[in-house]
Amino acid sequence: MGKEKATVAFQGELGAFSEIAARTFFPETLDVVPQPTFSSLFETVDRGTYTCGIVPIENTLMGSIHETYDLLLEYNLKIVGEIKLRIVHNLIVNLGVRLNEIRQIFSQPPALAQCSKFIRSLKCAEAKVAYDTAGAVKYLKETGARNAAAIASEQAAINYGLEILRTGIENNHQNYTRFIVIAKEETKPEEPTKTSIVFDLKNTPGTLFKSLSVFAQRDINLLKIESRPLDGKPWEYAFYLDFEGHPDQESCLRALENLREIASFVKILGSYKQGASVENRIRKKGT
Amino acid sequence: MGKEKATVAFQGELGAFSEIAARTFFPETLDVVPQPTFSSLFETVDRGTYTCGIVPIENTLMGSIHETYDLLLEYNLKIVGEIKLRIVHNLIVNLGVRLNEIRQIFSQPPALAQCSKFIRSLKCAEAKVAYDTAGAVKYLKETGARNAAAIASEQAAINYGLEILRTGIENNHQNYTRFIVIAKEETKPEEPTKTSIVFDLKNTPGTLFKSLSVFAQRDINLLKIESRPLDGKPWEYAFYLDFEGHPDQESCLRALENLREIASFVKILGSYKQGASVENRIRKKGT
Repeated sequence: MGKEKATVAFQGELGAFSEIAARTFFPETLDVVPQPTFSSLFETVDRGTYTCGIVPIENTLMGSIHETYDLLLEYNLKIVGEIKLRIVHNLIVNLGVRLNEIRQIFSQPPALAQCSKFIRSLKCAEAKVAYDTAGAVKYLKETGARNAAAIASEQAAINYGLEILRTGIENNHQNYTRFIVIAKEETKPEEPTKTSIVFDLKNTPGTLFKSLSVFAQRDINLLKIESRPLDGKPWEYAFYLDFEGHPDQESCLRALENLREIASFVKILGSYKQGASVENRIRKKGT
Repeated sequence: MGKEKATVAFQGELGAFSEIAARTFFPETLDVVPQPTFSSLFETVDRGTYTCGIVPIENTLMGSIHETYDLLLEYNLKIVGEIKLRIVHNLIVNLGVRLNEIRQIFSQPPALAQCSKFIRSLKCAEAKVAYDTAGAVKYLKETGARNAAAIASEQAAINYGLEILRTGIENNHQNYTRFIVIAKEETKPEEPTKTSIVFDLKNTPGTLFKSLSVFAQRDINLLKIESRPLDGKPWEYAFYLDFEGHPDQESCLRALENLREIASFVKILGSYKQGASVENRIRKKGT
């Protein structure tokens, strides 16, 4: 997808890492629209309310985000781009609050897990679940709480005019989230390309191996494989696979034809330019 | 592992599905010990405080439980058994509370997700996060709340003497959780056996395919494959694999030797009897 002006839906409050990913992927766009849930994001993009949506699909510390994989199977939207964003977590407080005053730390469960070592190091503070990282900052601002902190992006602290008491509090700084851009229509991707597909397998021995062999035979490099349970079929799985290349290439086209002989269904989720890993882009309030 | 008397640690409050799994797997044992977290469960079993522990590893609707996979890699404990338990969710209230009085429904996030359709059907009730299904029932009992309900097992309702207003409220009745039994020492498993391993791959094209080929060449049936990010190495993965058989069998031994030529490390997590799918066993209070 080109980087023209677009309306981009993301899940969370303004200042969420998804908003930062959207603004980094589409540097020209100011039209980013918060959505309450992943599900409402897919629904509004599918209805054509917004040009596209951006959703996290994988984090280097936590692994795959299952809900996104399930929604990709449920909706007929196309993946048209990706971006890998460095996630830096900050301890955010109301102005002047000191570290030893903090008794509660609010954030989304994945952010709390990514900062578990820092939280444990504050002996008297308890982790509390919020639905959203930026939403936790908004809550602090609204309540003016002086015994609480939030874990969120620098952008969220700037948006609400709160103070960053500590930065880089994640357990491991090799903390990246891969976001995908979804839209109703596919676009011709720039090189280097990758393609995401989902397929299931007839329940006979060796079929997973056979399905991977269609790529190995043609020297197509696999980038990721993920399995998810099939709804209502205990111990059967859908396989999500990313490979290098594009079905316009003869070898990829043949591999997909070959895979259709083995799998009960094969769905192409999209072909798109492989995304680079980027640091956060911060935008001052009001810009 | 034999079904002799053992002290079994599980995560959650009494009445948790993990407790039911423990009592079903070890019908002779009354010594089940609650642990606050998965991590403390692994630690106490590793220290030898308890004979073994039981932890959920996979649910047919939600997928793999990542924390369990990560702890299996971190600790040197062995998987010695498994059980697949049918998960039936119940709407539990204080005595006499009616459906139209309920404004809040407390449970663990996975249970709330598994019952999302039922929750949405109660227009005026909001889902609230609790750390534990049985803990949510305990909370209802302690507060005597009449505008709230919990989602948990029948066992939890019996333990706390509360009322089941609706049963089987999960979105899909094909809802099973696979639990594994972990211990310090491996035991000789009964047939049919399965083996769980974890390995990583050198970062060159085709290595996943090559690693699966060592099993395909020897007609060894793969039961499950799961990838998890390697800590601190963005976009590199550990692969968790279950296969039919046992390293005492020549073909399995050779396959593992072959895999060691391809992977940087291979760790055997355990060989154990393949578990059957079972319904809940309910125990009356005080028995």
